[in-house]
Amino acid sequence: MDGERGSTTVSIPDLNAVQAAARRIAGQAVRTPLIESPVLNAKLGGRLLVKAEVLQRTGSFKFRGAFNKVSQIPDAAKRRGVVAFSSGNHAQGVAAAAQILNMPAAIVMPADAPKIKVDNTRGYGAEVVFYDRYREDREAVAARLLAERGAILVRPYDDADIIAGQGTSGLELAEEAAARGVALDAVLAPCSGGGLISGIAIAVKALSPATTVHTAEPENFDDTARSLAGGKRVRNAGGAKSMCDALMAEMPGELTFAAMQGRVASGFAVGEDDVARAMAAAFEYFKLVVEPGGATALAAVLTGKIPIKGRTIAVVCSGGNVDATLFRRVLKQAA
Amino acid sequence: MDGERGSTTVSIPDLNAVQAAARRIAGQAVRTPLIESPVLNAKLGGRLLVKAEVLQRTGSFKFRGAFNKVSQIPDAAKRRGVVAFSSGNHAQGVAAAAQILNMPAAIVMPADAPKIKVDNTRGYGAEVVFYDRYREDREAVAARLLAERGAILVRPYDDADIIAGQGTSGLELAEEAAARGVALDAVLAPCSGGGLISGIAIAVKALSPATTVHTAEPENFDDTARSLAGGKRVRNAGGAKSMCDALMAEMPGELTFAAMQGRVASGFAVGEDDVARAMAAAFEYFKLVVEPGGATALAAVLTGKIPIKGRTIAVVCSGGNVDATLFRRVLKQAA
Repeated sequence: MDGERGSTTVSIPDLNAVQAAARRIAGQAVRTPLIESPVLNAKLGGRLLVKAEVLQRTGSFKFRGAFNKVSQIPDAAKRRGVVAFSSGNHAQGVAAAAQILNMPAAIVMPADAPKIKVDNTRGYGAEVVFYDRYREDREAVAARLLAERGAILVRPYDDADIIAGQGTSGLELAEEAAARGVALDAVLAPCSGGGLISGIAIAVKALSPATTVHTAEPENFDDTARSLAGGKRVRNAGGAKSMCDALMAEMPGELTFAAMQGRVASGFAVGEDDVARAMAAAFEYFKLVVEPGGATALAAVLTGKIPIKGRTIAVVCSGGNVDATLFRRVLKQAA
Repeated sequence: MDGERGSTTVSIPDLNAVQAAARRIAGQAVRTPLIESPVLNAKLGGRLLVKAEVLQRTGSFKFRGAFNKVSQIPDAAKRRGVVAFSSGNHAQGVAAAAQILNMPAAIVMPADAPKIKVDNTRGYGAEVVFYDRYREDREAVAARLLAERGAILVRPYDDADIIAGQGTSGLELAEEAAARGVALDAVLAPCSGGGLISGIAIAVKALSPATTVHTAEPENFDDTARSLAGGKRVRNAGGAKSMCDALMAEMPGELTFAAMQGRVASGFAVGEDDVARAMAAAFEYFKLVVEPGGATALAAVLTGKIPIKGRTIAVVCSGGNVDATLFRRVLKQAA
């Protein structure tokens, strides 16, 4: 609605943008396999395909968007580097992308972030800049770094290049399904700020319009499901807890939500026990290590929130960065 | 040495046989990915590639050989079916192959086999025929079934079609390495009766003669390593225990050992704790569920039994059929 008074102009990436991203990340990102279990299919009475993003570089899909974004930074700006705030998968994605491109990366993390996350991020050559989460605002800390260094901020989801990059997983999924002659009834992916699902929806709806696209979120963090149902962005109530640490965004992004409009049909919310059982099923049937937040889409199918009998559904298992202690507890919980 | 007095004529499959097997299994077997972890590579100071056979149909490489063998049974013999004796990965491979080909399969198992293994095998549509392991000989039970039914025996390893089928994993590995411009210094695979390693050696040595090929076995079950060192087949002492339940063959097969001659350079033996730590490393760096017997080759590299600094080594993680209780215990043991 360009030029209309009061409207916001957002630039939603299209299939071309996702295809361009796919060319940029080729050779750096893993073209992750689309796998299935004939035994589980027989039990479900339908066909379930799993896009194994746990096998992606850095253990989650986040590398796709990060590399697509960071690799487009002009040569003149490269030495000033990039900044991101995250203590999770986005941090590792940005750090790994910057390392490959020989650029400095500063990741802003709370001073009490788990040591394993700090170590992982440093393992990709990034500088970790701590802030006091009780006394400082992380955006202010990042803003100061950006100003001081002339660095470029890499947002976790609300950015056209990030969305297009994450969308390459949906592009691969749709291409692989077509190559196998499989018509997908539905595609589901875990959702936090919406970078992954909006990118997937752009690719999948362009290539396979009859396929419905859905989000999967933890209960009490189903802001996207409620936003989609109501047609406007709403926030989570706050105060809730979930082991899905990667899915804690409090509301969909502005750009991601705009991209979801007309492309994402609906969202599902799954309980903690459902997530645990989905992680155990991924262990048993797919031999994959999936982190809690990466298992919500699988959980939505296995709990019957979306019917699979006689249908073909693809789910993205979006990340596998879970520590052994939690994984052991989850396998026990699901037994 | 055809015609020489006292010699044994064995027909070792060649690269053509492996390539023919690859054409037979195409579309049924998974072309499993070859993955790596830049973080682990940096720690090792070398490049480690993992052939993820845990993602193979039935959760192990065994489907490759089984399908190659069973799919060649002439139409006239199909309705009489196949027989195998195994309570593990070979049983599932044969059952799944027969199910796809609409053939009956009878799997001979001890009456006290774990329920999960019985259920898995039945899950692929096979009949499970029990025997009393204290009062009956399983080969006699199988022989009776073969005679009664006119069925065909599918041996676990000492068969040219099984070897050629398992070799397709080595063929894919060599092709994928070449496609990425990677020169492999060495390839390692877990070893029991030798079907996998002999097939791999046939493919890899034909396509990449400079690459050395090695077995990896549990300590006290290193019959192949000792056989290779001495130039003749020797037996394990017996009485030893290992959590590598898939690697319990007491000596190399006749045909598999003949195929290893001049192709497999040497074998390594790894301890139980080494295996546990390799399974934990597969969990952490590769997000893969690997069973104990599937992790011995990875363990041989991680323990430095074969040097990787400045080199490129590929290991096969050959199976992922491990129950959650054991997996939890292993992650704790490795911590």
